[in-house]
Parts: sequence; C-alpha cells; structure tokens
Amino acid sequence: MYSVTVRDHVMIAHSFKGEVFGPAQRLHGATYVVDVEFRSPQLDADGVVLDIGRATDALRALLAELNYRNLDEHPSFNGRNTTTEFLARVVFDRMAAAITRGDLGAGARAVESLRVTLHESHVAAASFDGPIGDR
Amino acid sequence: MYSVTVRDHVMIAHSFKGEVFGPAQRLHGATYVVDVEFRSPQLDADGVVLDIGRATDALRALLAELNYRNLDEHPSFNGRNTTTEFLARVVFDRMAAAITRGDLGAGARAVESLRVTLHESHVAAASFDGPIGDR
Amino acid sequence: MYSVTVRDHVMIAHSFKGEVFGPAQRLHGATYVVDVEFRSPQLDADGVVLDIGRATDALRALLAELNYRNLDEHPSFNGRNTTTEFLARVVFDRMAAAITRGDLGAGARAVESLRVTLHESHVAAASFDGPIGDR
Amino acid sequence: MYSVTVRDHVMIAHSFKGEVFGPAQRLHGATYVVDVEFRSPQLDADGVVLDIGRATDALRALLAELNYRNLDEHPSFNGRNTTTEFLARVVFDRMAAAITRGDLGAGARAVESLRVTLHESHVAAASFDGPIGDR
Amino acid sequence: MYSVTVRDHVMIAHSFKGEVFGPAQRLHGATYVVDVEFRSPQLDADGVVLDIGRATDALRALLAELNYRNLDEHPSFNGRNTTTEFLARVVFDRMAAAITRGDLGAGARAVESLRVTLHESHVAAASFDGPIGDR
Amino acid sequence: MYSVTVRDHVMIAHSFKGEVFGPAQRLHGATYVVDVEFRSPQLDADGVVLDIGRATDALRALLAELNYRNLDEHPSFNGRNTTTEFLARVVFDRMAAAITRGDLGAGARAVESLRVTLHESHVAAASFDGPIGDR
Repeated sequence: MYSVTVRDHVMIAHSFKGEVFGPAQRLHGATYVVDVEFRSPQLDADGVVLDIGRATDALRALLAELNYRNLDEHPSFNGRNTTTEFLARVVFDRMAAAITRGDLGAGARAVESLRVTLHESHVAAASFDGPIGDR
Repeated sequence: MYSVTVRDHVMIAHSFKGEVFGPAQRLHGATYVVDVEFRSPQLDADGVVLDIGRATDALRALLAELNYRNLDEHPSFNGRNTTTEFLARVVFDRMAAAITRGDLGAGARAVESLRVTLHESHVAAASFDGPIGDR
Repeated sequence: MYSVTVRDHVMIAHSFKGEVFGPAQRLHGATYVVDVEFRSPQLDADGVVLDIGRATDALRALLAELNYRNLDEHPSFNGRNTTTEFLARVVFDRMAAAITRGDLGAGARAVESLRVTLHESHVAAASFDGPIGDR
Repeated sequence: MYSVTVRDHVMIAHSFKGEVFGPAQRLHGATYVVDVEFRSPQLDADGVVLDIGRATDALRALLAELNYRNLDEHPSFNGRNTTTEFLARVVFDRMAAAITRGDLGAGARAVESLRVTLHESHVAAASFDGPIGDR
Repeated sequence: MYSVTVRDHVMIAHSFKGEVFGPAQRLHGATYVVDVEFRSPQLDADGVVLDIGRATDALRALLAELNYRNLDEHPSFNGRNTTTEFLARVVFDRMAAAITRGDLGAGARAVESLRVTLHESHVAAASFDGPIGDR
Repeated sequence: MYSVTVRDHVMIAHSFKGEVFGPAQRLHGATYVVDVEFRSPQLDADGVVLDIGRATDALRALLAELNYRNLDEHPSFNGRNTTTEFLARVVFDRMAAAITRGDLGAGARAVESLRVTLHESHVAAASFDGPIGDR
C-alpha cells in the first residue's frame, strides 16, 4: 500500500462538558498540528498517489472553516464535545467528502482510506483511521 | 478506528548477552521515549476513547517500576535481554493488564488494541502492536 | 556557559485586538509547548546548573496559573494582547521571580539568564531571552 | 506484532514530467529522511526482531546507490517520475531483496513485512507498506 | 530580547566544486527546512515583534526565487558553491533587505538582528546570525 | 556569524551521588542525542565553515570513547557526577582539543566557538557554549 501524508495546523477555542475533563471544562484552546495520510494500492500514470498540491489546498480549505474560532459556538458542533478524537473524525469525514466530490482531482478517487492525526501537544495526539467508503 | 496516543519516558541501565550485540554487551543504558496508542472503534458518551488523564497516570506508574534502574538486576527480567522490542512488549502487557483491571476507568475497557513504541534515539525505535485480548 | 532546558505545555483561549491580527481577532486558542533554558557560568558541587526536578515543578506550577483558561478574562492581562512573544515574557518574569524567591533552591540563584521559547505550532515560535537581574 | 525502525537519509536531484507537477517539472532536488520499519510476529533467541546493526548497514548501502545523484540520469529509473511514493517503493523492493538474500542475517528472514517512509520536508512524506513475499 | 521564528522549506538541485565535497561534487539536491528568527528589544503597540503573517509571506516569496531550481544555473550564484551555510547567508541578506525596504511593515524596522537556520537533514544544519545593519 | 551543526548519539550507564538526585542515585542510564554547533565569522574558499564529513567523524570518534559504557567506572570521570551538563562540557573540551590538534582539518581552525547540546529526553537537555580559546 502506498501513502502520502501532508501536514497543516489549526488554532481553536473550546470547552468540554463532563467531570472527566476536570479543568478542561473551562474555556481554553489548542493548536492542532494535523497530518492526513492518503492511502492507495497503486500509483497513477504520473507516479503519484494523488496531486499533493491539491491535497494540501484541500486540507487548508477544510481547516479554514475551523481556524481561529470558538468551537463551542460553531454551528457544526452543537452540544458536542469537540475532543481531539472527535475532531480527527470531523477532518476525516470532510476530507473523504472532498475526495468523493472530486475536489482533489479524478486521480484521488483511487484513494481507499485515510488516517487523520491531530497532535495537541508534544505528548498527546488522537487519530481517526478508516476506509473512505465507510462514511 | 479512533485512537489516542500519550508520551512519557524512562531512563534505565542494562547489558545484553550475545555476540550480535557487539559493544552493547557491556553495561550501558538508554532513554526510552515511550508512546502508547489506545485504539477503539467508537467514542464514549463524553466523546473520548478514554480518560487521557488516567492513561497518562497509568503510563507514568507503569514506567516508574522500571525508571532509574539497572534492568540486569530487575526481578521481572531474570536472564532476559531487555532489548527495545522486548521492553515494548513489557509495556504493552502491563498496560493491557491495567486496562483489564479497570485502572484506566470503565470506559477504557472499550479499547481493543494498543501500539507501544519505544524511541531509543533519533534514529532507532521498536514497537509492539496487538489486540488487548490476545495477551 | 552551561545551560539546562526543560519542556512543558499549556492550552489557552484568547483573542487579539488590532487589524493586523486578521481572523485572530476572533476568540480562538493555542497549545504552547514551552522551553525554559537556565544558564549559569558554572556547575554547583553536585555537578548541575540547578535541580532539574525543582525547575520542572516550578514550570508546571507557573503554567498552571494559565492552563485551561481564557486569557481575555485573566486578571493579569487586563486589556493586553496575550501574543506568543508577550507570553514568553510573562513566563520569563515569573520564572525569574521564582528563582529570586528561592523556589528552585539556593543553587539556582547562580542562574544568570533565561531563554523562554513558546512553540505555537510546527511552523511558529516566540521567545524572550535576558539576564535575570534585568527585570 | 513486533517492529524495529531505523532512520537514515539521502540527497538527490531530479525533475518530473507532467503538468500536475507545476514548477517541480524543473530540475530540483530533495533530502529524503528515510524510516524503514521491519515487522515480525516474534523475537529471536537473542530477543530481537533482527540485528539492528546489519539493518542500519543495509539501509546505508542501499541509499548509497542513490545518494548524491541526479535520478533523471540513473539507469534504474529510465523515463520514470522518481516521486517520493515511487522511491518509497524502490527502497522497499531493495530492502526486501536484501532480506531474502540474507544480507541482514538469517534471523531477519522472519521479518514478514516492511513499512518504508520518506519524509521530504517537515510537512510532507510518502510511504510504501507491504508484506515481503508480495514483491 | 524578544524574538519570533517562522518556518518554511525549499527544494533545490546543485553540485559542489572542491575535493573536500567527495560525492557531493556530483549533481544532487536538498530539501532545506528554513527557520528565520527575528529579534527585537521591544514589542510594538499591538504586542508583537512584527506581523507574523507578513514575515511568513516574505519568507515564502524569498524562497520562491530558489525553489524547484538547479542553483548551478541560477544567475545569483555564478561559480559559487551554494553550501548550506552560504545559502543561510543568502536568505539572511534577502530578508534583511526586505525588512529595510518595508516589505514586512513599518513595525518590522525595529527588528535588530536575524538568525537564519537551514536544516538539510535530521542530522545537519547551518545558520547565519547577525545584526541587520551589518549587511 | 556562520555556524554548522551535526548530530549523533551515545548510550551510557551511570549513577549520581547526592540527595538532590533522588531515584537517579541508583544505577540507570541515558541516550544522549548530541548536537555540536561550530561557529565561524567567515567561510573558507570552498564556501564552508568546516569539512562537515570530518566534523561528523570527529564527533563519532569522540562519542565512541563513552558509548556503551558505565561512566561510573570510566577512568576519565573518577568520582564525578556525569550529569548532562557535565558531559556537555566533556564533549566541548574534547571537540575543542580535536580542532586545535587539526583533526578536523586546517580550515576548522577558524572555528571560534562551539555549542554542545545533549538531549536526554523529549523534555530535557543541557548544553555548554563557549569560545574555543577559553579552555
């Protein structure tokens, strides 16, 4: 299996509901350094998994909807805890939809699965990994 | 599949038996930067794979049993070569047992598999990856 | 010149005032991975710049006052833009004061200067570097 | 599953054919930081996946054939785009062949699969991951 | 002293003249991950060293003149060895000129010195560090 | 000021004397990832600070004297606490002596100062920085 991974980041505010979160129940924030791995069993005629420029642009566009925002007030996440693992799934779903819509080019439709990892600090990260058809 | 990863480290002394180890047959030591990835197919009602605070505490407690020790004299490793890959398995087994005992909370029992990686330098690492029920 | 550096992190929310900040004028947040370098021209009788355990504890205590908070409402920063470079100075001033108070032990009083670096992402950081007596 | 990972790097020149590559159609170059992960379901009598010294030497020897070269003129890649994902496969195939030939020692024949990752910058990487018997 | 650091990268081909370079006398290439640190003794009215958005844009524009090129044929470097340390100086000189021209905004004219670091692999880097007025 | 930095690592065992060290009074060990920065105000005729190949070899040779050893029994460190900062100085002194002896080539005699940093984990490091003539 081949894969290509691109990295970008997003800076958001949010708070969590539930005693398990302790002080993170207060309004705080995070930088998420985001890695998206695109996997395909074969390379296209150009010798690539997908157009890395379009993949990078798609990730930036997708993160721009979240960037510099308070996720507690974001209409997409009404009443949900926007934990790192939850946001990894959000990025996964949106990137999978972008691929299906053809935003990353026709060649990217050969991508079978994604792994999205959000690094929240030098000591913690979360990811969502799955096939694209399984949304 | 969702996952959460936490990082800590441990500093130990040891030596290896066997010509394959060359100068590492002498008493020496290592810092292991340890990543434990906890995987679960779903998030709990709080939106997390597990309580990351308890995961972090469990990893610290587990590593404290090894930290600042000469593993050649550690009762757990009698006569064994405590290689990086062997120690990855030790951390895996102990973390899996902690999850089964409920040390990481009831929610962590949904964790299906772990990947434990020990980075021994900027150019070498070893890991053990497996299902929790397969111990 | 000798130095010792310790690392920790803090997760906060804030917003900025001023057109230069563009979308960062909205409430958002950041993870700051914080490095504090302690410099001394000589080692003490134990062979260290300072007690690294106490340095680590002092950094954690200092960051706990900021951690999981909305800095826009923090009494210390009334009306100030809590930019990365501003916060680097805040950490510098508080660590310098802790050293002067003796919180890091008598030996740490030999520390002459500090460099505090806050990494806000994989592509941006800010720091404050100066002598301790220059506060 | 156990694994051991070693890291080295290679510095090459090349150009790409195809409009999708934009300015990368010009002659340019890259440093690839290369990670090879060797996976085995069990440890040998010494407690290792394989002799890490021989794995490191094999990776260095393999990369030496590419290092400090213009891949556009390399006889192995006649008319091919030597993209990061393509080169990940090249390293995979050559390391798999080295294992099969016994270059990494008899013990390394227990290695079932490899993951080869080439990091081309701090924001992009590509990999090839597969079983050794599947060449 | 305050500082702000931004990171970007550039991918080039080149060769070196001189026996000291061994195999690097052949045409090869490199990815340089470039850090530019901007230093100022004080923050402006907005609480920043300079507009980090403009600093990032200036670095990208400056690197675009080098990116995806064979530096052996670049008119700027006629007959020079474009070593990592030489290129660090090139980036330094061009960024200093951009600041002087006002490309980074009026506020950036308070920047007194720069440190430019080019990481050529995970084990090697070079830098040029100096006052802006010393060009 | 120009600089070039090379990285290598060393794995050692040791113990510390003094209550300040707590559990680190027991025999344990460390991996030190070692960075040596060589600084010079000018480049030589080849366009380099020094021959990076010789610098890398000199660092490897110097670390080989410590590698895979119990520093408590090393004749060089009789009765001394081989702390990270102490070892940074040891590497500094030995590298400075190597430069003075001409081991790094005649050109390296233009190197005016060194910064040696030993990373002992992902959260702690120590360094020694000074002029070469100040030994």
